[in-house]
Amino acid sequence: MRVGWLGLGAMGLPMARRVLQAGHELFITAHRNRSPLEELARAGATVCDNVADVVARAEVVCSILPADAEMEAVWGDTKVRQAFAPGAVLVEMTSGSPSVMKRIAAALAQQGVAVLDAPVSGGTAGAAGGTLTVMAGGDPAVLARVRPVLDCVAAQIHHVGGIGSGKAVKAINQMLAGIHMLAAAEALSLAQRCGMDLAVLQRVIAASSGQSWIFDHKAQDILKRAAKPGFRLRLMKKDLQIAVDEGRGLPLPLATLALQWYELAARDAGDLDFSAVGRLVLGD
Amino acid sequence: MRVGWLGLGAMGLPMARRVLQAGHELFITAHRNRSPLEELARAGATVCDNVADVVARAEVVCSILPADAEMEAVWGDTKVRQAFAPGAVLVEMTSGSPSVMKRIAAALAQQGVAVLDAPVSGGTAGAAGGTLTVMAGGDPAVLARVRPVLDCVAAQIHHVGGIGSGKAVKAINQMLAGIHMLAAAEALSLAQRCGMDLAVLQRVIAASSGQSWIFDHKAQDILKRAAKPGFRLRLMKKDLQIAVDEGRGLPLPLATLALQWYELAARDAGDLDFSAVGRLVLGD
Amino acid sequence: MRVGWLGLGAMGLPMARRVLQAGHELFITAHRNRSPLEELARAGATVCDNVADVVARAEVVCSILPADAEMEAVWGDTKVRQAFAPGAVLVEMTSGSPSVMKRIAAALAQQGVAVLDAPVSGGTAGAAGGTLTVMAGGDPAVLARVRPVLDCVAAQIHHVGGIGSGKAVKAINQMLAGIHMLAAAEALSLAQRCGMDLAVLQRVIAASSGQSWIFDHKAQDILKRAAKPGFRLRLMKKDLQIAVDEGRGLPLPLATLALQWYELAARDAGDLDFSAVGRLVLGD
Amino acid sequence: MRVGWLGLGAMGLPMARRVLQAGHELFITAHRNRSPLEELARAGATVCDNVADVVARAEVVCSILPADAEMEAVWGDTKVRQAFAPGAVLVEMTSGSPSVMKRIAAALAQQGVAVLDAPVSGGTAGAAGGTLTVMAGGDPAVLARVRPVLDCVAAQIHHVGGIGSGKAVKAINQMLAGIHMLAAAEALSLAQRCGMDLAVLQRVIAASSGQSWIFDHKAQDILKRAAKPGFRLRLMKKDLQIAVDEGRGLPLPLATLALQWYELAARDAGDLDFSAVGRLVLGD
Repeated sequence: MRVGWLGLGAMGLPMARRVLQAGHELFITAHRNRSPLEELARAGATVCDNVADVVARAEVVCSILPADAEMEAVWGDTKVRQAFAPGAVLVEMTSGSPSVMKRIAAALAQQGVAVLDAPVSGGTAGAAGGTLTVMAGGDPAVLARVRPVLDCVAAQIHHVGGIGSGKAVKAINQMLAGIHMLAAAEALSLAQRCGMDLAVLQRVIAASSGQSWIFDHKAQDILKRAAKPGFRLRLMKKDLQIAVDEGRGLPLPLATLALQWYELAARDAGDLDFSAVGRLVLGD
Repeated sequence: MRVGWLGLGAMGLPMARRVLQAGHELFITAHRNRSPLEELARAGATVCDNVADVVARAEVVCSILPADAEMEAVWGDTKVRQAFAPGAVLVEMTSGSPSVMKRIAAALAQQGVAVLDAPVSGGTAGAAGGTLTVMAGGDPAVLARVRPVLDCVAAQIHHVGGIGSGKAVKAINQMLAGIHMLAAAEALSLAQRCGMDLAVLQRVIAASSGQSWIFDHKAQDILKRAAKPGFRLRLMKKDLQIAVDEGRGLPLPLATLALQWYELAARDAGDLDFSAVGRLVLGD
Repeated sequence: MRVGWLGLGAMGLPMARRVLQAGHELFITAHRNRSPLEELARAGATVCDNVADVVARAEVVCSILPADAEMEAVWGDTKVRQAFAPGAVLVEMTSGSPSVMKRIAAALAQQGVAVLDAPVSGGTAGAAGGTLTVMAGGDPAVLARVRPVLDCVAAQIHHVGGIGSGKAVKAINQMLAGIHMLAAAEALSLAQRCGMDLAVLQRVIAASSGQSWIFDHKAQDILKRAAKPGFRLRLMKKDLQIAVDEGRGLPLPLATLALQWYELAARDAGDLDFSAVGRLVLGD
Repeated sequence: MRVGWLGLGAMGLPMARRVLQAGHELFITAHRNRSPLEELARAGATVCDNVADVVARAEVVCSILPADAEMEAVWGDTKVRQAFAPGAVLVEMTSGSPSVMKRIAAALAQQGVAVLDAPVSGGTAGAAGGTLTVMAGGDPAVLARVRPVLDCVAAQIHHVGGIGSGKAVKAINQMLAGIHMLAAAEALSLAQRCGMDLAVLQRVIAASSGQSWIFDHKAQDILKRAAKPGFRLRLMKKDLQIAVDEGRGLPLPLATLALQWYELAARDAGDLDFSAVGRLVLGD
């Protein structure tokens, strides 16, 4: 297929690479740094003059942008919206807010553009290996049309509801992961205080009602104050903010409190893995 | 073996029943209500005059009491401590605090009594079915001696460290479960706001980084405002308090906040399953 | 002066009444209920066909609306903005958000309309008695021009900075008052637990570092679970939300937590005085 | 009077000095550092061999110790309790917990020793200037007997109830002050974000419902990240812990949250004034 690709960051670049390698035509445009562009151009991608040009030449446009502000900047531009070819589909993969996604989809519907709301999880490893999970909101028929592209990057594709549902499920998952990470740090801090053997603790918790994916997979990182990239703390902060914003007026006691701690931690550790929030709990 | 048994509540009675059925001799004494006593007596248990008498006649004394206060009342009594037969073992299964456990074990050590700190998880179903998990702290040799009794009630026995470690692991697990339950309620509240299909949400979260045992197993109960007994909210409140007390002086932001919400919820729903904390989040 | 007046609720009506009684011409228009209109019309106010008409006939337009949504609905309407007479001034008294105020003022500046951002405090008693405090943001010269109107309702007029500063000071004050109210309830709950004489407590706190206006003036209402109107809990919730929104990305631990408790309390007690948040702390 | 004095720290030394200067006989004993002892000895105080000796020689024993642990160590010693002269009075000025105070007073009552529970506020300046506030719990007749001593150090003496009430009022005041300090920092952070003139803000808040003693007197210190001693952050943390402990089982949402932030802040700033908690909110 002719695939337009917007967003060549830590997730977007390896995903675009896989789409190109799978034999799709890829259309890209200038980005804040040139190296991803040059790499993809050497591999056969077409570099367009601007976003509207990318959009105009594609059957499927995939976008995976930093946050709501960038989504709104790109899709809020009337010229870009009008550039879509008849019958084209936008696959919006940004981890943004459900309500912004709905606004954008409504504006594009007026141009006859079908939108799939399709954020992903699985991190940079999943992007490179093509093992991401896609949480897709929108028309199942539209999802079916773009599967040849999504299959290049994803091992699991869940259809989760209408437009906005993809971003909602992503936000809810991130909210849970963010809370569980802070809870895991508290558990480890208490375990240290009690002089527990942490390997034993992990084995028992893994088989008990306090089990979580985060505790199973991240307890070591928390304890090691791991500084390796992983999923950036400032992105977790952004995702928690999305959840809190969507839940405006609802009591979300742990989510709002956790957001405060990620805000504190982001001052010093925003570019580290979000397990670094544990440093506030455990000390440096 | 000759087994003394203290505590015939919702957990203790079915456990004692299994020990008796397995062919051990059982020694019990007056309890706040008579029916458990009479049932066990009919099944062959010996009813003793008082706690000291139970203790005096047993090789292994198992106690599973409501909380720290009862542990301290029973084991703080010099006469009871002095009643142990030479070489007897106390298996203390109460969900209490590690520091109280250590004090009691130290006092009993002066009498030459070996103590195993052995709280359990798995609920009343696990007690009835003999599928509990035991988190055992203390001397592994002592654990080995009492395994014939523990095997009557437990499917898994984890040796987790020295005296106090059993209660510590239990408290840490409960703290995580209590936090995860409140987090799950927040996730469900946000999902309702976003108009999500909850079955889909559960399926996706189960395969994502926000997964937890609680979300997997309790989301339905939270949504149904299930009133069936389960694990009582007031016991979760007690367990969170144990964790917060043990962690005195450490930052435990989510645990201390969650405790506040369980305290609020305990006013109206203390005898319901602890998923009822979700009513505060979701509304009645 | 010729004064247009928008908003005839619990605050707006008594304020408008005073302006009329002081001899100003008053222009009003249809409102959700008719009785304030009829009362003011009988007293000499002119009832106009619509908001644009009110605006067109006034030298000074005062608006005191429920919240941001209403401010945006009224002032976001191009026809209304274009209706202002040359040289007219808008005195915007709504307790809304600083950023919405700035957007509105910028749009009106394009029409050559001067805006004063002038929320008030002092409650319905202050409105009726003309003893309100005005927190005015904007050009001091504009403030000087509208003083004849403000003097009808206010005992104190503070110039606090540029456009948005009025709403900001109001939001900050409300945030502090909302937190102090919840803190006062906690203090009283602890005092009851300790068996304190509450009159003595209040006397000592009034002279100590824990003193606050709220504790001095509201402790009795908290204890009495006073149900009389006062300042509505749902308005405090709204004001805390304004503060939290303006502080997005800043750590505001107590404000965000307090907002959660006002949200909980608003389910049952949204129309009561905001001291009713204390019921969650003290029990009903 | 013959006054025994225990505790010669930042508060105790200037207080003892004033008692001595007022013409009372002063009995003191070895302390962790020698200089206060030597200074007071040169000024006429009698240095005794040990605490029991101080107690034995006094009509009134004043103690102002760091915390509960020291109170329990000194007054839990049977020899010390038995050393009191017939008719002697203990004036216990430590900022400790009401329940510990009650236990100590009960043990001393068995020796016929009258106890006054008399913590103070007003800081080191008040101690040096004799302008402290005393919050006295216990028998008013006992208070009357020791007034000649208290009058040396205090400008205000409030009788607040029975034994434990003094410590309770102190703890409640500290809890409010600790919360208000954190709230003030949040208010200032939001004001900075809004570009407010802080002098103006302070003037308006001082006249509004958000007013507090802390905001009136400490806003400057918060903004200046003042490092001067004042009332130490680690003592505020201790006092909040006392309040939280006494309120065990009661919902105290802001107090428990504030305690978490003081715990975080105490890692780096425990010896600074407690306004340093604001650094977590405002950044360094």
